[in-house]
Amino acid sequence: MTKRTITLNCDMGESFGMWEMGNDEAIMPWVDMANLACGFHASDPDIMLNTIKLAIKHDTQIGAHPSYPDLQGFGRRKLDMDKDSITNMVIYQVGALKALAESQNTQISYVKPHGALYNSMLRDLTIFDAVADAVACFGVPLMTLAMSDNEKLLDIADKYELPLLFEAFADRAYLSNGELAPRSMSGSVLSQEEEILDQVKQIAQYGKVRTIDGCLIPIEADTICVHGDNDQAIRMIHKIRDAL
Amino acid sequence: MTKRTITLNCDMGESFGMWEMGNDEAIMPWVDMANLACGFHASDPDIMLNTIKLAIKHDTQIGAHPSYPDLQGFGRRKLDMDKDSITNMVIYQVGALKALAESQNTQISYVKPHGALYNSMLRDLTIFDAVADAVACFGVPLMTLAMSDNEKLLDIADKYELPLLFEAFADRAYLSNGELAPRSMSGSVLSQEEEILDQVKQIAQYGKVRTIDGCLIPIEADTICVHGDNDQAIRMIHKIRDAL
Amino acid sequence: MTKRTITLNCDMGESFGMWEMGNDEAIMPWVDMANLACGFHASDPDIMLNTIKLAIKHDTQIGAHPSYPDLQGFGRRKLDMDKDSITNMVIYQVGALKALAESQNTQISYVKPHGALYNSMLRDLTIFDAVADAVACFGVPLMTLAMSDNEKLLDIADKYELPLLFEAFADRAYLSNGELAPRSMSGSVLSQEEEILDQVKQIAQYGKVRTIDGCLIPIEADTICVHGDNDQAIRMIHKIRDAL
Amino acid sequence: MTKRTITLNCDMGESFGMWEMGNDEAIMPWVDMANLACGFHASDPDIMLNTIKLAIKHDTQIGAHPSYPDLQGFGRRKLDMDKDSITNMVIYQVGALKALAESQNTQISYVKPHGALYNSMLRDLTIFDAVADAVACFGVPLMTLAMSDNEKLLDIADKYELPLLFEAFADRAYLSNGELAPRSMSGSVLSQEEEILDQVKQIAQYGKVRTIDGCLIPIEADTICVHGDNDQAIRMIHKIRDAL
Repeated sequence: MTKRTITLNCDMGESFGMWEMGNDEAIMPWVDMANLACGFHASDPDIMLNTIKLAIKHDTQIGAHPSYPDLQGFGRRKLDMDKDSITNMVIYQVGALKALAESQNTQISYVKPHGALYNSMLRDLTIFDAVADAVACFGVPLMTLAMSDNEKLLDIADKYELPLLFEAFADRAYLSNGELAPRSMSGSVLSQEEEILDQVKQIAQYGKVRTIDGCLIPIEADTICVHGDNDQAIRMIHKIRDAL
Repeated sequence: MTKRTITLNCDMGESFGMWEMGNDEAIMPWVDMANLACGFHASDPDIMLNTIKLAIKHDTQIGAHPSYPDLQGFGRRKLDMDKDSITNMVIYQVGALKALAESQNTQISYVKPHGALYNSMLRDLTIFDAVADAVACFGVPLMTLAMSDNEKLLDIADKYELPLLFEAFADRAYLSNGELAPRSMSGSVLSQEEEILDQVKQIAQYGKVRTIDGCLIPIEADTICVHGDNDQAIRMIHKIRDAL
Repeated sequence: MTKRTITLNCDMGESFGMWEMGNDEAIMPWVDMANLACGFHASDPDIMLNTIKLAIKHDTQIGAHPSYPDLQGFGRRKLDMDKDSITNMVIYQVGALKALAESQNTQISYVKPHGALYNSMLRDLTIFDAVADAVACFGVPLMTLAMSDNEKLLDIADKYELPLLFEAFADRAYLSNGELAPRSMSGSVLSQEEEILDQVKQIAQYGKVRTIDGCLIPIEADTICVHGDNDQAIRMIHKIRDAL
Repeated sequence: MTKRTITLNCDMGESFGMWEMGNDEAIMPWVDMANLACGFHASDPDIMLNTIKLAIKHDTQIGAHPSYPDLQGFGRRKLDMDKDSITNMVIYQVGALKALAESQNTQISYVKPHGALYNSMLRDLTIFDAVADAVACFGVPLMTLAMSDNEKLLDIADKYELPLLFEAFADRAYLSNGELAPRSMSGSVLSQEEEILDQVKQIAQYGKVRTIDGCLIPIEADTICVHGDNDQAIRMIHKIRDAL
């Protein structure tokens, strides 16, 4: 485990029209993988193109970050869509981003569903299957949550010959079953710098994470998700980068 | 000119959600090229996929039919967009359709802008340039209006090494300068079956079209645009197909 | 009960832009109450205005038919919205329709939620509360499903001093608990003319409905919902009207 | 003219979903009239409601700020809409805001079109007529640009018995014909604090404005439009308020 390398990924390109969000210029140099919104929960073709150019400049991998169609709710509200509609919607969004990337002579490297789509595919394997079916069209991996037991997800992915990338969270507390503690639970979001850095090191060096009730459980993560919402978050990214 | 072959193209996949439009099932077997809406003036990912499948079944070429973002106005209302925004918006839409086509192991063969975007690119070469820039990314031709003088369009297309496909209209009257007579002009839309079939034959066999004031002018068309809005239109397509 | 008068209500104004749906011209003279889409699942300001004019012409009451924001899904897909967001969204839609009605010197008479919003407010009283809160702003009744036990809905409505209008369905089978049999259940939609007319007469004359397993249960309905999707449905409306 | 009172108006409620814009909390106490976006270029029902509450708290008049439907372009791009569609679209938006205001026991006091709709109604009297027709339904004034010659606008307004409110701009240079200097012209936007305060005083005390080429022309303004985009702009509002 000592030679384990782990990447940092971050949601980016989440502005929309005149509205700015995040600080992509400041974050892009510090992360390995940029999850780019595709116009359904945030972004538009202009912002997608500009964020692709920024990623190219800093040699950051580009991932598609598709979502339920919900600009007002930023893709955080579940929409009861049919399985096939989810597949088609994901292909639509990823295809749009892929074409913009290719117009700049680069490629997308992976797909990570956003918000309510990400959460609902973990809770409902039919949705995971719909997303996997879509992502497999592009010959790139699907990024999903590293859990103690990933067998069911791997079985579906195998059906589509789809590689999975597992991510862990730097600043979220875990339950003893390997799931993220829900945001409504006290202590579910780590805010102390030391806590966050400790969690990152545990994941990266030992493949383990300490749960909210104090146990150490195994977690096999390929990448760690960081956030860049404000200046403090950006400073945290610098420290996480140094720690790795 | 006697061995000239000319194709038929038709706007298709213009339903949206629960709303049906056209009769794609009846038309698809009779046309060579299907211009598929990409979700901005009509269609959605589900309808795009189903129309792609229908095109495959009948061995019809698939073209992307991108538009200004305007579902209410069906893409028939001009929107004052920046040049770069037009380019990015066209790449977005064509990329989305292309990915859905590739998910079915087929490819898009060309791009034909829709409605107000089609008309405005003919009137404003900056817009034509923006569209050409986008289409060139996909390595497929751009379909545009065959006019008496296509030099300016060809110059722009050459800049992007972009092939053009020129289309004529079966049921629209022409002005002596080779432009379509505006719909507001009396006699601008041909309604008599004989007139339409004559126009098609003139275009296909002799590369000429009779203008609204009775002259014959040259017109070099690769394809003829037909409409499938109703049962009469569909019967007309059959007769045009027979005539060719 | 012999002098019971019962009205017919029908979803109308469900076209959108260039896409037509239903046959409002044919149906409007035969129903008492027209539930008008407000632009979120169908319709647009132009269609809203034209449907209002048609209702005025036939002296049909106008009801607002608000929905989750979902044109592609026609408002039939549940979206996980916050309670306050539902209230505000319903006020927005009803206010828009009300202003268009007032521009024609008429008024809206009631509000009936559409599709997934209608269904989810019956299953989740928090959503019913959110909708009731919105409708109470307009001083008109809220139309909802007549069930065997309406007490919980009436309690919430009383809190807002909101009158309720209860509707029954002409062509839907009922469960013994007074709920509609889900569409997935065999026999849930009545298709035989005799069956439908019998159900309408039972509801209107005796305040009872026969359940899918053959019992008669009480149902207190102020109005019966009819559908006008096709020519057969329109003929059925004529027969229901005659029967009442 | 010495007792002339003039109000300050400012575009507000321009956030959308998760995206924040402006600093309404800081500005609301300092302006007399808040122009509230209605969901077509910015805002959503939740933000509309919250901004209405903020206006009530500071006793600021509420105006509706309707726009072309264009979230990506923030309503700054002209869309070629039919006259009737513009009227219906404005009624829709103003009606939605009015209902949200009434839900809080307040009223809208005026309507000011936004962005490209504002500009295009000044250039095309058909559009001004369409907007006037819509606003007249609400019994409140329409806010428009104070120009040297307002006769044509007044003639249309009279047709609808519609009062007009004329606004001048604190930080925009004027042409000698009384129109705003286009943003593309050098010096069209005043940036020096002294210049802006001088312009405000000239307008408020003497009913005159100095043009970009140095003349003084008469301008009859009821209200002055200020901007609150950043901290500097907010400080400027304070100084303008003090100067009046």
